[in-house]
Amino acid sequence: MTDLSNSLSTAAQQFQESAIRRSGMLGAAIPGLISLAAGYPSPDVFPWDDLQSITADLLARRDGNTLQYGATRGYRPLIEQLLAKTLKDRGITGTFDEMIITTGSQQGLDLVGRVLIDPGDVILVELPTYSGAIAAFHNLQGQFAGVQQDAEGMDLAALDRTIAGLHAKGQRAKFIYVTPNFQNPAGLLMSRTRRLALLDAARRHDLVILEDDPYGSIYFEDTTTVAETRPIKADDTDGRVVYLGSFSKVLVPGLRVAWMVAPLAIAQKVELAKQAADICSSVFDQRIVHGALDRGVVDRIAPSLRAHYQAKRTVMEQALQASLVGRVKWTSPRGGFFLWIELPKGVDDRELFERALKAKVSFVIGSAFFVDGQGHRFARLSFSGISHEQITEGIARLAAAIQGHG
Amino acid sequence: MTDLSNSLSTAAQQFQESAIRRSGMLGAAIPGLISLAAGYPSPDVFPWDDLQSITADLLARRDGNTLQYGATRGYRPLIEQLLAKTLKDRGITGTFDEMIITTGSQQGLDLVGRVLIDPGDVILVELPTYSGAIAAFHNLQGQFAGVQQDAEGMDLAALDRTIAGLHAKGQRAKFIYVTPNFQNPAGLLMSRTRRLALLDAARRHDLVILEDDPYGSIYFEDTTTVAETRPIKADDTDGRVVYLGSFSKVLVPGLRVAWMVAPLAIAQKVELAKQAADICSSVFDQRIVHGALDRGVVDRIAPSLRAHYQAKRTVMEQALQASLVGRVKWTSPRGGFFLWIELPKGVDDRELFERALKAKVSFVIGSAFFVDGQGHRFARLSFSGISHEQITEGIARLAAAIQGHG
Repeated sequence: MTDLSNSLSTAAQQFQESAIRRSGMLGAAIPGLISLAAGYPSPDVFPWDDLQSITADLLARRDGNTLQYGATRGYRPLIEQLLAKTLKDRGITGTFDEMIITTGSQQGLDLVGRVLIDPGDVILVELPTYSGAIAAFHNLQGQFAGVQQDAEGMDLAALDRTIAGLHAKGQRAKFIYVTPNFQNPAGLLMSRTRRLALLDAARRHDLVILEDDPYGSIYFEDTTTVAETRPIKADDTDGRVVYLGSFSKVLVPGLRVAWMVAPLAIAQKVELAKQAADICSSVFDQRIVHGALDRGVVDRIAPSLRAHYQAKRTVMEQALQASLVGRVKWTSPRGGFFLWIELPKGVDDRELFERALKAKVSFVIGSAFFVDGQGHRFARLSFSGISHEQITEGIARLAAAIQGHG
Repeated sequence: MTDLSNSLSTAAQQFQESAIRRSGMLGAAIPGLISLAAGYPSPDVFPWDDLQSITADLLARRDGNTLQYGATRGYRPLIEQLLAKTLKDRGITGTFDEMIITTGSQQGLDLVGRVLIDPGDVILVELPTYSGAIAAFHNLQGQFAGVQQDAEGMDLAALDRTIAGLHAKGQRAKFIYVTPNFQNPAGLLMSRTRRLALLDAARRHDLVILEDDPYGSIYFEDTTTVAETRPIKADDTDGRVVYLGSFSKVLVPGLRVAWMVAPLAIAQKVELAKQAADICSSVFDQRIVHGALDRGVVDRIAPSLRAHYQAKRTVMEQALQASLVGRVKWTSPRGGFFLWIELPKGVDDRELFERALKAKVSFVIGSAFFVDGQGHRFARLSFSGISHEQITEGIARLAAAIQGHG
């Protein structure tokens, strides 16, 4: 048997371990486990009637192209609808040639990485950051420099210091990866001021920004307005921002359809990379999503999605107030799927995880989201995919695991 | 604007150019063009009634998991059905842990490449070979050594010489990529004797074989039996063969569902690579394909697919006999989608392509499938996706372009 390449390394394996935890696969192994780990959307808000009608109509038409290979860039009417409506609503201008449909935003991360990263290149990321981005860039032999966040987002003085430190070592950063809207895992909403300042910093340092925005439409109306979610890309005047949007959280994730708007030179290379990666994303899935946009389904269900997840967020906070206030710290999420907690002093995320499993509750360890080996004082709790009762009981179990600690 | 990586190079761009030609996108630009380029399956044989019924039933059940994220490895009942039926029919034994569902076989090529290829590694390929494999491996900075084929498949004396030549230069081959059944582009069926000898050669040289088999079920019953398509993987006793199967040609390509059975150590790394590449393939698509297998649709339509493409092959050969016999040479394909012709002396594939476009017919230039810069005396003609009338008229136009040459 020939040797295998080592290009997939320990960090990727660690990611998978954390992902297995996150995916709730442990739920199958441990009867009665409540998963606060899996960051899944709730099937309760899937628009079943619409999807039944759209797929039935699509297949009844018997247009061979519905089930044929399609253009690598994506289904043209879907791209045109995104340009005319979705991008416009978010304040983004783009052209057809700057758009690519991807097999989920995870493929967007992978393809942008393939185009921008040469082995050893440094990517600037938030501390913490999305573990799937760490895995994608790591597999491409990228290296990471983590930048602290404060309440408004990435700390730009720290960013400057980090970049200067890289220069001093003869290294050069390739791009900045951020999730300004309700970040996975920390739930943070980057302020408008900080977004503009980050764009300015990217200009000064001549860096691309990769802006990942799966949760932007899931803002909680009790605290937050749509204006506060305005993408950095909307103010990108010099073609410096690659923006990733997705249907996984605002429609369904089981159709693997996401999209990217990128500066032309990047979009062209991404299209080439995608052609060799999977030829095209599912044409059937793309046409279903197009149907959902065309019939106004995505816009119509958005307010109920916001209310659904906001209510779950409130239930989780009430449960934390009831059993863990004073022991753990958190900032109330203003959108998204996640509540990020700081554990009591002396509590390690990995030890707590083992203890929590015995109490039949799971979460994702904080350190899975840090590129600097830190984060062991944190945990990511997801309220998105489970019921109010499960949230309350899950937090009670977690509280017992924390109380019993040490 | 920061510099872009050069990891996507000229060869990939060349691939795209040929792919654009192949995809028939030129058809939109040139009114009345007949594409002998696009290697698409025929929508005439898509099982519309079954797919309508399967998708309607799936959505009527309102099982949230139908449209949720799924396991990276794939939908378990689909994998189990493949193991119990499809693999068994092909003489392959495999285990659940050796199977991965991929977003088309193109993703299988990419993921195997990512796991096996370190930059500069050499991949042994047939002359000619599938251009999508060239692009995938090239994007991973693999290098190529081409091996001549004779009427029975890869020339194993040439393989030995090529490997010895690499050793002399201090280079080492990483794996052998082959398409034994009705290869794209040359249409060749590797003989059973040659398959076993190739497996033996791989053992001697301690190399992995990557066996790509999208066309195996499309054998033409007037000349060929199913026994002749028995995969190399069926005789793999020491875990050396990675086998790629696909539903694109035997069901529909617009659902992006293919599969891989690989030695465990490779399958584990492929799963990690896939997780960072797209998390999972479309769960909805996988469940539709599972439904089609479960209801026996794939087996039921297979004889009609074979008859459909065989009839088109016959029409294309009759047209060639009528207008080009003595001018071009070909071997009658015993399966698959393609007829590979050797052009008259003095005719260059690129020049003929330009002339053919003026005559409103397209094909894929032979040189797109050669890793050694050769192949300019060849052309790939596809009979799969167009009507009998289009085939006849397309060949008449091609004959005029060739007659008018030089």
